[in-house]
Amino acid sequence: MHILVTNDDGVQAPGLLALAQAMRQIGQVTVFAPDRNWSASGHVKTLERPIRVTETMLADGTTAYMSDGAPSDCVALPLLGYVDKVDLVVSGINPFSNIGHDVTYSGTVTAAMEAVIAGVPGIAFSLASQDKPANVPTDYGPAGEIAKRVVQKFLEGRPPEGVVLNVNIPYLSVESTKGFIITRQGLRVYRDALDRRVDPRGRPYYWIGGEAPTGVNEEGTDVGALAAGYVSITPLQLDLTNYKAMDVLKSWEWEIK
Amino acid sequence: MHILVTNDDGVQAPGLLALAQAMRQIGQVTVFAPDRNWSASGHVKTLERPIRVTETMLADGTTAYMSDGAPSDCVALPLLGYVDKVDLVVSGINPFSNIGHDVTYSGTVTAAMEAVIAGVPGIAFSLASQDKPANVPTDYGPAGEIAKRVVQKFLEGRPPEGVVLNVNIPYLSVESTKGFIITRQGLRVYRDALDRRVDPRGRPYYWIGGEAPTGVNEEGTDVGALAAGYVSITPLQLDLTNYKAMDVLKSWEWEIK
Repeated sequence: MHILVTNDDGVQAPGLLALAQAMRQIGQVTVFAPDRNWSASGHVKTLERPIRVTETMLADGTTAYMSDGAPSDCVALPLLGYVDKVDLVVSGINPFSNIGHDVTYSGTVTAAMEAVIAGVPGIAFSLASQDKPANVPTDYGPAGEIAKRVVQKFLEGRPPEGVVLNVNIPYLSVESTKGFIITRQGLRVYRDALDRRVDPRGRPYYWIGGEAPTGVNEEGTDVGALAAGYVSITPLQLDLTNYKAMDVLKSWEWEIK
Repeated sequence: MHILVTNDDGVQAPGLLALAQAMRQIGQVTVFAPDRNWSASGHVKTLERPIRVTETMLADGTTAYMSDGAPSDCVALPLLGYVDKVDLVVSGINPFSNIGHDVTYSGTVTAAMEAVIAGVPGIAFSLASQDKPANVPTDYGPAGEIAKRVVQKFLEGRPPEGVVLNVNIPYLSVESTKGFIITRQGLRVYRDALDRRVDPRGRPYYWIGGEAPTGVNEEGTDVGALAAGYVSITPLQLDLTNYKAMDVLKSWEWEIK
C-alpha cells in the first residue's frame, strides 16, 4: 500500500505532518506537497511553465518532496510516474473545515479530486480548528488518529469507483468525538460584505469583508454532523450535472432558426 | 434586466467583448473582469488582501471595470453592491470548450457558480475554437449570437433555482450549427505524461506534457453534442454529493472505539 500525502497549505504545514505520520501506520508513504500555501486556490494544473521538484524534510526528519507547482500538480506529477505506483491519495489535514459550498473553493478537496480523475482513490481531511481559541496552537493528534481509522475502513471496504471522500473532523479529543456520520453536502451561508476604504493617497480599495460564513445546521449534512461533534464523511462525485434541471430545460423549445 | 458580463481570460479578451455586445441587445450591461488572464485558476476568493477596481475601455469604446482580484472576486464585488442589483451573470466567451472534467478546472464555469452561490443565475459560455486552424483569428460573432439566444430562452423560461448553465458552442456559423441539446457532463480522457528535462545547469525540471485531452464521444453528453455540431447546454449543480455512494458507505460499520 503506497499512500501519497499532499495538501494545499504547503509542505511545512503541521496538518500535513500529522497526516503523514498517521498514514505511516498503514503503509508506505510519499509526501509531495506545494512549497508554499495555496489555500483557496481552486483547481489549477500548471501547463504554461515547467515545474521544479525539490527534496526537503518534514519536522520529524522524514523526507518529503516539494514543488513550485499547484496542489493539483503535486498530485499529477507523482501519479504520472515521478514516484512508484500510488494506491491512495490523501490530502490535508486542512486547518479549517471544508463543508457546504466550501468544497468548490477548497484546494484540499481539489487535490483528492485530481487523484480520482487520474483513477486513484482520493480522500480529503479537514479539521474544524476554527472552533478552538485562536491563541492556542492547533493539536492535530486526534485528527491524525481519526484519519488513520477512516483510511483503514476505506481500505477494508469496497468503496464505490470514482468517489472522493470529503472528511471533516470536529476539534475534539478522540474520546469526545461522538462517531462517524455519512453525510451529504450541506449549505453554507456566506455573509460577505463589500468594505470600501480609501488609501493614504485618496484612492479607493475594497476588502471582501463581512462576518464568517455560517452553516445551515441541518441533520444529515456535513454542517450538522460537525456541529453535533461527529466526524462527517461526505462522498463527492465529479459529475456536476443537475439531472432534475435537465428535464425542465428539455421541456423548453430549443430551435435554431 | 441588468446583466453582469465577466470572464477568466481578462478584460481585454475578444470573447468578453463579443459576449458584452450580444448581451447589450437584451438589457443593461456591466462588464467587470480580471485585469489579467486567470485561465485554469479554479475557484478563488481573495480574502487576504484588498482589491483594486479600475475603469477601462473595451475595444468598441464602451466602459468596463477591471480588478486585480480573481474571476470569482469579479463576480463577488458587483453582487456585494459595487454596482446596481444584478439579475444575471454571464461569463465567457472562453476560447476553448469546457466539457467533461474540464468544468472542475474552469474559471469560466466557476464565475457562473459564484453567482449562483450568491443567489443570482449564472451562465458560462465556451467556444470550441480549438477545432479551427491555429493561424486564423477566432471569430466570436456566431458564438455571441448563440449566447444571446440562450440567454433569451433562459429569461423566457422558468429556470430551476440554483442551476448553473454550462454552454459549449461549436466553432461553426449559426446556419451550420445543428441546434441545441440539453446534455449531461461527459467524460474527458486526459493523456498527460511526465516530461523530464534537464536545464543548462544540469538540474531537472518537469513539464506536464502528453497529448491534448480527448472526450468520450457519447450521445447525450456535452462531448457528444459538440462533436456532432450542436450547442451543448449542461445544467450543473453545486451539490457534489454522490448519493449512491452514501448508501454504500452507510452499509459499513463505522464505530469510534
